[in-house]
Parts: sequence; structure tokens; C-alpha cells
Amino acid sequence: MALPPIKTVGVIGTGVIGASWTALFLAKGLKVIVTDPAPGADARLRDHLLKHWPSIPNAKVTQDEYLNNFKFVKEIDAYLGDVDLIQENGPERLDFKRSLFAHLDANTPEHVLIASSSSGLPSSEFITECNKNPARILIGHPFNPPHLVPLVEVVPHQGTGDAYVTAALQFYRSLGKDPVLVKKETPGFIANRLQAAVCAEAYSLVARGIVSAEDLDKTMTSGLGLRWALTGPIMTNTLGGGGDFNHFMDHLGPALKTWLDDMHRHEFDVNSQDVDVLKERVNEWTSQTNLKEIEESRNKRLAGMIKSKSEDYV
Amino acid sequence: MALPPIKTVGVIGTGVIGASWTALFLAKGLKVIVTDPAPGADARLRDHLLKHWPSIPNAKVTQDEYLNNFKFVKEIDAYLGDVDLIQENGPERLDFKRSLFAHLDANTPEHVLIASSSSGLPSSEFITECNKNPARILIGHPFNPPHLVPLVEVVPHQGTGDAYVTAALQFYRSLGKDPVLVKKETPGFIANRLQAAVCAEAYSLVARGIVSAEDLDKTMTSGLGLRWALTGPIMTNTLGGGGDFNHFMDHLGPALKTWLDDMHRHEFDVNSQDVDVLKERVNEWTSQTNLKEIEESRNKRLAGMIKSKSEDYV
Repeated sequence: MALPPIKTVGVIGTGVIGASWTALFLAKGLKVIVTDPAPGADARLRDHLLKHWPSIPNAKVTQDEYLNNFKFVKEIDAYLGDVDLIQENGPERLDFKRSLFAHLDANTPEHVLIASSSSGLPSSEFITECNKNPARILIGHPFNPPHLVPLVEVVPHQGTGDAYVTAALQFYRSLGKDPVLVKKETPGFIANRLQAAVCAEAYSLVARGIVSAEDLDKTMTSGLGLRWALTGPIMTNTLGGGGDFNHFMDHLGPALKTWLDDMHRHEFDVNSQDVDVLKERVNEWTSQTNLKEIEESRNKRLAGMIKSKSEDYV
Repeated sequence: MALPPIKTVGVIGTGVIGASWTALFLAKGLKVIVTDPAPGADARLRDHLLKHWPSIPNAKVTQDEYLNNFKFVKEIDAYLGDVDLIQENGPERLDFKRSLFAHLDANTPEHVLIASSSSGLPSSEFITECNKNPARILIGHPFNPPHLVPLVEVVPHQGTGDAYVTAALQFYRSLGKDPVLVKKETPGFIANRLQAAVCAEAYSLVARGIVSAEDLDKTMTSGLGLRWALTGPIMTNTLGGGGDFNHFMDHLGPALKTWLDDMHRHEFDVNSQDVDVLKERVNEWTSQTNLKEIEESRNKRLAGMIKSKSEDYV
């Protein structure tokens, strides 16, 4: 089953994530029908769009088209027949998403793919009241900010149709994104789990006084992170094994086990007093930094890095 | 106690790490006296130096000086009175390092700092037969390749003198490196522990069939890694909490715990059959890639990324 081409996207919710998705969709030449019940949401969306424009890689339209190819509506129901895909960005509350998806499923033509930006709730939990076609519902979880960072985690539930999974992957790729397929629902999907693994050990090392918060971060930004921006853990290991992952595992496996065992012995407990020690040590450092400057510089460099990566491959 | 300025470095061992250190020392205008007992080591070192020259950031000498400011010697003993610092890169075997360091300590002037590139053995384990001045011995663990990646983990043992720790940090900084201080010896120091945390979860997700090896890596290179090249886990969390790490912890702590608990339940066991499943899935992917091309492209981009980061800060 081939799905019709996606020309018009419905965006539900224009918080940080929804506004950034809208910017990307518009820059790639799509029409967008967008809604958000919050007072002033329309004006805030326009501010976001203006702010994001300079940093979007490979825009396909003029700034003028970008700023005019969308319609902000108070109620989207009357327009659900006009959209080819919905990207939902509502609050991460189960009751809210359950009734929203029941409503969207009932009122949107049967073939229209509905993707949720949910970062935590798997779709199996909120499709329970969808009776029309829950097979077209899946998670399309972006990495913040979506108009910039290529990663999208596509997570079907057990009943999502293969054609919809394929269509979602194709759609995100057509926007210049780099979607990954999470084949089975799992808490935190992939990125949040890898991030949690690093954070738990980072918190433990700082709380134990092994390393300062600043030096912990430097270990990442001046070492590990530089490499991981270019090759992931599996390829890094493969290259580290002289092109042979098996060799790496056989050679480094025992050391890995020693480190992991020691990490278990000193595991960070988010419900203990270690949290207070950690907070104090982190605040000691961050209170001496200019966070606004760091964030602006990070976002600028991030855009530059992504641009240079995408240009290399074109 | 201020240590004398470092003008001449003794390099012991010219494998991949030792040769790369030598390249960096020479490019920064230091004199190097270098030794390695392996047949043909002298010629291989010259090959490495020629290869590394174009990628070294901010060299302070001409290529001609770079290639001539070192002396390769069969036995370094006669030169130990001429060096201001030793960077040791011998095999990671405890018995070997123990007798090597006993010999170096006995035959090198008392004030000379001796740093080991050891990636795993803490120096407390191999200074046991050093009777002259074990307080000048510490770990200066680089991240491969040392001539390029800024990170150096400086790890004193309990008896290392503060002046030597300070001198080591200053020395590495003077080379344009970004050293971090590991205040207490801990298995795997910092970088290998953070790396182990990510790898263990990555292996588990791939072995369980949640995600393909290729998509696992993409989650890093198109998402997490891009961010971690710019801000480490602590600063990323702080910015994620709107500039407030405490807010982030209070808000995300419970989700973090849920993910970590699930990760524990599915923990990768390096001594189980999961290893074979993992190897098969990784090899399925890597056998379809051009590893030589990936490695060359990675090294080129790594050099470019480091150069652009260092230029921004100058």
C-alpha cells in the first residue's frame, strides 16, 4: 500500500517542539495547518518562525513563502480532511493524549498518518480509545530543536502498519532528517536510554568527588563527544578493533566488565542525599558561567556542525 | 615548589600513542629524546611524524624543525639527565611497568615529572618499587590520537605531589590540550567509564533487537553526539532545565529512574551468548560498509572539528 504524497501537514501544539517542527515543514516547502489552544500562541509561533529561519539547513522556499504557507486555526477539526500527515506535540499526559488521539483518529481520513512527538509515552498507551485506524499511529520523536538536529526516533506500536512505518521514515528523510527505527517500544526509546546511562555515571563521579562537574563535562566535549559526533559507539569500537568488532569485544570485554562492576558498586541513587551533593557541586560551577552565552554559542556551533556535515554528504 | 620549564621530553615507546605524542611535542617546539626497543621503530616513527604533520593544530615550528628536533636512541639511560619530563607509552602489563618505573625513577633526576599514558593501570599499582621520588609519577592518559584530541586525563596516585599535578596540567595546557584532573584513582578513570556506560546499553539494545546496529550509531551521530561535542552531560542538563540543574533533576529524576531500572532488567552480560548475537548483528552492518573510508573521513572531520573549536576560542 503506497500512501499519497505528503503536501500538507497538520501540527497540533506549538510549544518549543511544535513551533520548531512547523519551521522545518514550512522551510521544506510544505503547507502547514497549525493549532494551539494557548492564548497568544499564534503570535509566539510567528516569533519562533522568524527566529529559526536563518539556521534551517537547505531551505527550499523563500523567506516570504516560509512565513506565509501556514494557517493558524483555533479549531483544527474543519481542516482534518485537508492534511496528509499530523505531527502532534501536546502535553505528555496520558489522559490528555488518550482523548486527543481518540478524537484525531475518529475525525481524520483513515489513511492519514498520525505521528506523536512524545518523548516518553509509547503510543500503545494512548491509542486505547482509537477505533477507526490505530494502525496509522506511531511516535516520531525529534531531538530538540527539531528544525536543526537530524535525529528522529520512529517508534511504532505493535499494531502500527508497516506501510505507515515506511511512510514515516520516508517523510522524515525527505525533510533532511536522519530517522532511526525503534523496532519495539522500550522506556526512553534509544536516545534517552543512552543519555541516562551517561548521566547516571556522570552524576556518580561528580557526587563522589572523583572529578569536578566542569572536568566531567570537559571529558565529553574535548574527548568522547568529538568522536561520537562522527562515529557512534558500535563503529567507534569496530575501528578501535582495527576494523573488527569481534576482536574489540574479545580484547576489551574483560576490561569493560571490570569497569561496569565498579560502576554498579558506586551507582548513583536519584532518591538519596547524593542528589543534594551533586546539585551543590554542579551549582558551584554553573553559577560561575554565563549560561546565556554558553547556550547561544552552543546553538550557533550546533547549526554550523550540522550544516558542514550535511554539505559533505551532498 | 615551581618546577623548571619543560624544554626536552623523553618519550618511552613509539607505538601509535607514543608516536602521536612525539608528533605533538615536536610541533609545539619541544626537543624530544625517544626510544623504543622494537626492530624498525625508528623508521616507523618517521613515517608517523610525516603523516601527522598536516593535521596538527597550531604548530609552532616549521616542518623541517619538526622533523629534526628529536633524537631516536636505542638506550635512553645516558639521556635521562637531559630531559625535563618523561611521557611513558609502554605495554599495559603490570610487571613490565613496575620494573620500567623502578628503573626510570632510580635513573632520572629527582625533580623530573614522569607521566604514564596508561589507559587502565593506575600508577599506585606500578610505583611499588620506586624508592627515589614516586611523588613525581602520575598518569597522563591521552585520548587517541593524542596529537589531535584535546582530552588528557591526569590521574595522580595518593602520594603524587601537588606541585607535580599542577605542573602536568600546565604542561598539557601549554600544548593546547584540555586536561582534566581525576582526583582519586578509579577503574577506567572518567572517559572509559562514560564510554562503558553507553556501550553496555548500546550492546543490550542491539542484541535485544530493539534497534539495528546502524540505527543505534545514528542515534549518537545525528543526535546525542552532536550535542555532546559542544556541551557535556551536566551543562546539557542545566540548559535543559532552563539554566537550572536543580530544576532539571527534580523534574527529570523520576523518568531517569524508570529508564535506569528498565536498563538494569535488560543488562548486557559480556559473558553470555548475547555477545554472539551482538557480534552477528554488528558484522551484518559493518561488512557492508567501507571501513577504511569511514575511518579516513572520521579522522579528517575530527581534525576539522577540533581546529574550528580551537580557532573560535583563540
